[in-house]
Amino acid sequence: MIIKINDNGFLSEFDEANFICVISSIETTLYYPISGVHRDYIRYTPALDVELVFLGKTLTLKNPPVDSSLSPSPAVISRACIELLDVKNLHINAGSFVKPKIPYINLDENPTGRIEFGKAMENSKDLFKYGYMLGKNLEGKNLIIGESVPGGTTTALGVLRALNYNAKVSSGSIKNPHKLKEEIIGKGLGYIKNRKDIFSILNAVGDKMMPVVAGLVKGFRGNILLAGGTQMAAVLAVIKEIDKSLLEKVALATTEFVLYDKNSNLVEIVKDVGDLPIYAAKFDFEKSKLEGLKKYCEGAVKEGVGAGGLAVYAMDKGIKNREIREFIEENIKKWYP
Amino acid sequence: MIIKINDNGFLSEFDEANFICVISSIETTLYYPISGVHRDYIRYTPALDVELVFLGKTLTLKNPPVDSSLSPSPAVISRACIELLDVKNLHINAGSFVKPKIPYINLDENPTGRIEFGKAMENSKDLFKYGYMLGKNLEGKNLIIGESVPGGTTTALGVLRALNYNAKVSSGSIKNPHKLKEEIIGKGLGYIKNRKDIFSILNAVGDKMMPVVAGLVKGFRGNILLAGGTQMAAVLAVIKEIDKSLLEKVALATTEFVLYDKNSNLVEIVKDVGDLPIYAAKFDFEKSKLEGLKKYCEGAVKEGVGAGGLAVYAMDKGIKNREIREFIEENIKKWYP
Repeated sequence: MIIKINDNGFLSEFDEANFICVISSIETTLYYPISGVHRDYIRYTPALDVELVFLGKTLTLKNPPVDSSLSPSPAVISRACIELLDVKNLHINAGSFVKPKIPYINLDENPTGRIEFGKAMENSKDLFKYGYMLGKNLEGKNLIIGESVPGGTTTALGVLRALNYNAKVSSGSIKNPHKLKEEIIGKGLGYIKNRKDIFSILNAVGDKMMPVVAGLVKGFRGNILLAGGTQMAAVLAVIKEIDKSLLEKVALATTEFVLYDKNSNLVEIVKDVGDLPIYAAKFDFEKSKLEGLKKYCEGAVKEGVGAGGLAVYAMDKGIKNREIREFIEENIKKWYP
Repeated sequence: MIIKINDNGFLSEFDEANFICVISSIETTLYYPISGVHRDYIRYTPALDVELVFLGKTLTLKNPPVDSSLSPSPAVISRACIELLDVKNLHINAGSFVKPKIPYINLDENPTGRIEFGKAMENSKDLFKYGYMLGKNLEGKNLIIGESVPGGTTTALGVLRALNYNAKVSSGSIKNPHKLKEEIIGKGLGYIKNRKDIFSILNAVGDKMMPVVAGLVKGFRGNILLAGGTQMAAVLAVIKEIDKSLLEKVALATTEFVLYDKNSNLVEIVKDVGDLPIYAAKFDFEKSKLEGLKKYCEGAVKEGVGAGGLAVYAMDKGIKNREIREFIEENIKKWYP
């Protein structure tokens, strides 16, 4: 089932789409536990996620990542949808600590830096341009764009705060470390050189996924479903600063777990950005025989790797939430051997 | 004008196509002057070529490469066709010494090795699989595939010789260093572990472009124009060893300079591979006011970076050879500032 908010018929023209996932690591996550990803996996998470999505198995480590409650990566949802619908997919490296062992599009070798010192990156404008050029050269009618950026809700908070949004961001954990995120952002915001310049803001407290996705949106000819929660809401805010008219071809799609998350305010943020449709995939993980999936209903993981957007796309094509769950249940032992 | 040999109407269905260029360096070129590329450029050539094609300017160095007679890179032909027809293009790194400063698809960080010691690579089978997986995930109706691999006619000779073709390969120089190529190949062939296994042959004396392109051909759903001379003829021979039926969706397209090259036997090699159409773009560079283009008529450069295939595609779409030449003449100072 798809929950639709502010629907404008966006999905009716979204009949054929490919998927792109943009990955980055953030150095801050090595020093502060801001990410919901299990700490043993944090260097590997982006690589493992896109390996699972692209290949149906991981190569860098034996298993895909798990969160701190040992729930499986949302990449299992993404992979299920991709296999069920045979969705073509490519993946962009915007600075993952560990490079994935699949063909990937390289935009930046180096990770996002220390946001608590306002040193997220120096090249957000170049990354935007690269994303733009790449988007212009991508074939296909429509695009679903997801991300795997551990720690990315903190950079989302930073960018939204710098742009004066009243934002509470989501988290990949059952316990959202709001206070720690605020502390880090509070430090980082002070280093922004020019708060009226979006690239100055990104350079200080953003992550490298953000300008890349904004560039893709500008360059790609067709419509785009931004697949993610508050991180993609932050990207919407970035896009608005760069070129408001681009928002006309964009919608946001996420999971019910982010939409109904009482610790974040996704709908409010998106409404503050503009008059955009929001879609959310409603799963039936409460019925799952897998503890890890059931925990999603308690707030574990919630979203990532384009899971919500791919599920919305699949459900719009007639796939039932039961089918997605059963596909995951049938394959989980293959994916997590 | 397009010269057509063994035409089967391939181009009539080749109405929409994107371009991909696969780049690799070969360590042997650092020790022996087997490449026609100017020696000051040889480490940079693949990166510069695809930068020019993708961006219309180079970033790694101020200029695109020149050959040993100072003629411009064939990438100028490729870029002209891409701009004239607005062809979408992506580029694959299969081990260039220097990485291009554009978004590129990474398949292998390390260059092709020392073919004179039978140590071209260890992973040709993996590269084939990567190419296959990537090809499956590429959107679009048809594909033109080119290459930039300095020294690649020597690896072509090695692979063709190992497969018992009567091959004389082309060269990017006016003087083709046949004897040196034979000497290097003669050494390398002795190291092949199993001459009945194409991946053994590639691992010894091939280059990394070859298994990648073969994989792309297997994975991509639509028709494919292999854009190149004797190097792409060698790829055809590789494809035949892997799966002969794949040749049904392939044609070869090159330049008149390779087709009429008396020091090589492209048509004979392709005919030995199978019943495939060969196309060649006829230019009018003899009329050019640029010395560097005129030298193409004397045997300089000849082909590369998909120039012949892109020109055939452009001419099939109604672009005149005069238009391609004039576009290059108008832009040469911008490209080579």
